[in-house]
Amino acid sequence: MTDTNTQILLRARPVGEPTAEDFSIVDSEVPSPAEGEVLLRTKFLSLDPYMRGRMSDAPSYAAPTALGDVLPGATVAEVVESRDPSRQVGDVVLAYGGWQSFSVAPASHTRRLDPSAAPVSTALGVLGMPGFTAYAGLTQIGRPKPGETVVVAAATGPVGATVGQIAKILGCRAVGIAGGPEKVAHLTELGFDAAVDHRAPDFKEQLKAAVPEGIDVYFENVGGHVWDAVLPRLNKFARVPVCGLIAHYNDTAAPEGPDRAPALMRHVLNKSLLIRGFIQTEFVRDHEETFLAEATGWLAEGRLRYREDVTQGLENAPAAFNRMLRGQNFGKTVVEV
Amino acid sequence: MTDTNTQILLRARPVGEPTAEDFSIVDSEVPSPAEGEVLLRTKFLSLDPYMRGRMSDAPSYAAPTALGDVLPGATVAEVVESRDPSRQVGDVVLAYGGWQSFSVAPASHTRRLDPSAAPVSTALGVLGMPGFTAYAGLTQIGRPKPGETVVVAAATGPVGATVGQIAKILGCRAVGIAGGPEKVAHLTELGFDAAVDHRAPDFKEQLKAAVPEGIDVYFENVGGHVWDAVLPRLNKFARVPVCGLIAHYNDTAAPEGPDRAPALMRHVLNKSLLIRGFIQTEFVRDHEETFLAEATGWLAEGRLRYREDVTQGLENAPAAFNRMLRGQNFGKTVVEV
Repeated sequence: MTDTNTQILLRARPVGEPTAEDFSIVDSEVPSPAEGEVLLRTKFLSLDPYMRGRMSDAPSYAAPTALGDVLPGATVAEVVESRDPSRQVGDVVLAYGGWQSFSVAPASHTRRLDPSAAPVSTALGVLGMPGFTAYAGLTQIGRPKPGETVVVAAATGPVGATVGQIAKILGCRAVGIAGGPEKVAHLTELGFDAAVDHRAPDFKEQLKAAVPEGIDVYFENVGGHVWDAVLPRLNKFARVPVCGLIAHYNDTAAPEGPDRAPALMRHVLNKSLLIRGFIQTEFVRDHEETFLAEATGWLAEGRLRYREDVTQGLENAPAAFNRMLRGQNFGKTVVEV
Repeated sequence: MTDTNTQILLRARPVGEPTAEDFSIVDSEVPSPAEGEVLLRTKFLSLDPYMRGRMSDAPSYAAPTALGDVLPGATVAEVVESRDPSRQVGDVVLAYGGWQSFSVAPASHTRRLDPSAAPVSTALGVLGMPGFTAYAGLTQIGRPKPGETVVVAAATGPVGATVGQIAKILGCRAVGIAGGPEKVAHLTELGFDAAVDHRAPDFKEQLKAAVPEGIDVYFENVGGHVWDAVLPRLNKFARVPVCGLIAHYNDTAAPEGPDRAPALMRHVLNKSLLIRGFIQTEFVRDHEETFLAEATGWLAEGRLRYREDVTQGLENAPAAFNRMLRGQNFGKTVVEV
């Protein structure tokens, strides 16, 4: 094989927004699979907000990436060499290959995709981790009842868009928050009952008008000023699944005061709120199979739609990653390698 | 009847800690019961932290007391006149008579107490609202498993002491936090596995040493610097029932910065925490009967103990109330009228 393996390594731990100097792009030898393994050529690399946490060594729900290591990430890849009878050359699989053009993995750690069921890149988005995050958080923590109001931010992103559409399927009022008129218009196309622009000067008033009966479920994936606007609108017994806080991932210190933590706890007390952080992995065993069956069906029926933000070329991954952290992506961020 | 009804009215809404000027003490005519009602002579008035919220008109889980009205509160009282066949003169009942020496109530709004089963004042404490708050929050939200670590603050108070003792009954490690060596010593007498003094200069280190396996359930009833010390010690999937925030009830503005609300939400996310505000009323229908049966049994067996902080004379209620908000009470605060 004359190919080389292009890899993006973590060179330094970013302080604030990552810069080009925090990454190094190297060409390495293409690795060889051992018995039971497959060699994969990356077709699509998923970029997801959680990766910012892996670049840092602050305590988090997962260990940080070591300096000098390939950055981690889910991939859709083609099998180019197989040393396991369960996988054939040409199979397309979901893997966790990272920011590189080739990877090896135990065949058992890959999932074969059916390109006739849905475009294979959806395994990174609406039918993948982000879609399942939306499904699990909404149905297992948010538990909305028909007629209740569900609000989600970053609503054109792969998690938010799925939250809103599943809320509609469950008979709820779905309200999406996004940045800019183009994204807001897209939410209406997706069937959200109302959409609010968090960059608008009258954002708080817009949100208030969009939830005339208050908020029963707020699916939290951003934090920041959106959360500040949502908190006073939460109804008694509202539920807040928390799967991300993208507005804070580049924070280098606690924001200026006053200290609003006591006020947050007062809301919790006065409105009997439920706030629950989660990672989708805790729900995989009991709920992933149902999710895949239901979501694939909704996709085929046109009840669940998705949008992708595709960047060409692995070398452009760092820039695409930063665009996503700034909310400049429009749909699920993937890199076509 | 030649008696007069001594009443304590809310004269002004307190700013910060209530002062004598916020209350007025008046002598009124003893009221007459209508058909179906009883006239009650107060024996014990319960003082509870939630009353601070009623004195304020900030949004809360209950409507504020109107200026000029009698302050509300649970009472243990003797029936002195009955216009309902279900109650006899001389019966001792649990009522919600407020800060006054006589009150009338529909007989159906009172619960007859059995003085032979337990001292009647326990209906305001360990067998009353505080005890049920402890039981419901711990068993329905905290849901500790045997061997897990349960931490509670204000641990010599009627809620905290009950939380710790029920945690022991459920097979957990119980750690109490209280202010001062005398209270800390009392926690050990009650059977807590460890007790920590939040006034000690090395409080954070003491707490860390007391929870070698971290904290699985933190029963939150105080807030403030205790919560700050607890947060980093919470385990993944820890549960935090929130029934009170006494450290903040006299706050007049948000504390100085930095703003720690984002850091709080990061803990929620990184450790998949559950934080849930509640008031015991939401659990009454399904769980109060079981609680009363179990807790009365535990009391009789000596597995559940309690301590009361009794003030003599209704006119001393405002001062006793402030002592409680400052944590200077030692046990369930009641006024013997």
